[in-house]
Amino acid sequence: MKQITSAQNPYIKQLVLLQEKAKARRQSGTFLIEGQRELLLARKGGYEIDTALFVPELLSETEVRALAGRQAEVIEISREIYQKLAYRDTTEGVIAVAKSKSLSLNDLQLGTNPLVLVAEATEKPGNLGALLRTADAAKLDAVIIADPKGDLYNPNIVRSSVGCLFTNQIATGSTEEVIAYLKENNINIYCATLQDSAYYHEQDYSTPTALVVGTEATGLTQPWREASTQNIIIPMQGEIDSMNVSVAAAVLIFEAKRQRGFSI
Amino acid sequence: MKQITSAQNPYIKQLVLLQEKAKARRQSGTFLIEGQRELLLARKGGYEIDTALFVPELLSETEVRALAGRQAEVIEISREIYQKLAYRDTTEGVIAVAKSKSLSLNDLQLGTNPLVLVAEATEKPGNLGALLRTADAAKLDAVIIADPKGDLYNPNIVRSSVGCLFTNQIATGSTEEVIAYLKENNINIYCATLQDSAYYHEQDYSTPTALVVGTEATGLTQPWREASTQNIIIPMQGEIDSMNVSVAAAVLIFEAKRQRGFSI
Repeated sequence: MKQITSAQNPYIKQLVLLQEKAKARRQSGTFLIEGQRELLLARKGGYEIDTALFVPELLSETEVRALAGRQAEVIEISREIYQKLAYRDTTEGVIAVAKSKSLSLNDLQLGTNPLVLVAEATEKPGNLGALLRTADAAKLDAVIIADPKGDLYNPNIVRSSVGCLFTNQIATGSTEEVIAYLKENNINIYCATLQDSAYYHEQDYSTPTALVVGTEATGLTQPWREASTQNIIIPMQGEIDSMNVSVAAAVLIFEAKRQRGFSI
Repeated sequence: MKQITSAQNPYIKQLVLLQEKAKARRQSGTFLIEGQRELLLARKGGYEIDTALFVPELLSETEVRALAGRQAEVIEISREIYQKLAYRDTTEGVIAVAKSKSLSLNDLQLGTNPLVLVAEATEKPGNLGALLRTADAAKLDAVIIADPKGDLYNPNIVRSSVGCLFTNQIATGSTEEVIAYLKENNINIYCATLQDSAYYHEQDYSTPTALVVGTEATGLTQPWREASTQNIIIPMQGEIDSMNVSVAAAVLIFEAKRQRGFSI
């Protein structure tokens, strides 16, 4: 088995770029996954693992091979190199190079009565991670990111999604592409936005439904409001006028799930 | 008007302690509030302002007096001192010394059909802030923190609650005290916990209700499970087995609100 002990090794330098640069991820079509649970969820989600690097003091070669799958190359690295590559400060001892997915709208496989979350231009990786975590819990048909800021395989998003970047069906596209996709698929569009809105809990989400949320700062863009089947709001009865986007999305998603009797 | 220009001023040193030390807050019965909106919400929430310190380049004395109220002493400070005291990196230019409230269970004023959130030992200030923000939006009767870790006037909590520390009725107590309080007030206890639980959306929250959530790491302690009217869970249909506590609490709170027709 290959071993790398020098942080000056050119392959390791390449991996550091994968961690730091969206361009490196885009050009190579790969990204890094850190942690055992994340790796497991990525494989469950159909991600292909190219290479798994591990620290032999922290887990065995057998464990790594089981996590990464047969096709993956396995490389022993020193603790020092692991820490150089690792984004989190954990002692998991495994980091893997995985192939990105296309994230194309046309690759989504929706059920017969889909429930989809659309997030427009979500800026904060933490918010997107939280949305993905809720979407996993609700087993939504898909999460669609419209006009994404930056690439989804950013280590911040990978980390904050606690593996749910892999367990959800995800697609990205421009707002126009996403709207066209939803219309072609006869999916009702419920936009979480203030203007001309009805209370979220008085709407019927039992037919094909997309719940659309914007960024906290600016709300949804005009094309969404024009394409909207119905704008919806959560009644705000206190002193403040907005909720965290991942909290608001969870309230909407679980109301839709409740109406559907949590059938999937 | 008093002016302070030296960061070595003993009063300023005292305020730095208020920012940094729970003990200083406890002993003085005061804490710091930063920002105009926060100050406004604190006054709305009935907090008394002792002193308001402001940077004259950023807002006027008239504005500060309007924000802080007549009884408050107003002191001019330099930008340098403001930055020394300020927790956030903003340009709001006002920071105030406010009197803490007792946060005693007996001081809570509940409506005739209360809906209350109980959070046990919530460790992360960000989670508690998010809970308070949701509680404000839902205009809950009260938020009760059982076995709080540290004091609530921690600047991290003040900040992450975006002022909702002030707009909610809040009390703290030991888990035993809180349970006794809920029972005395004939409030049903719904514990968000896995054991012997029913689906949250199949329960009736139209009578006096406390929704009880634990910390993410360990869940609720045994006394809660024993005192529980009914344990509840949110169905988890994906690959992961837990939701963020503030997201889960929002789902529960808004289901209760929905059942109550959002009447307050």
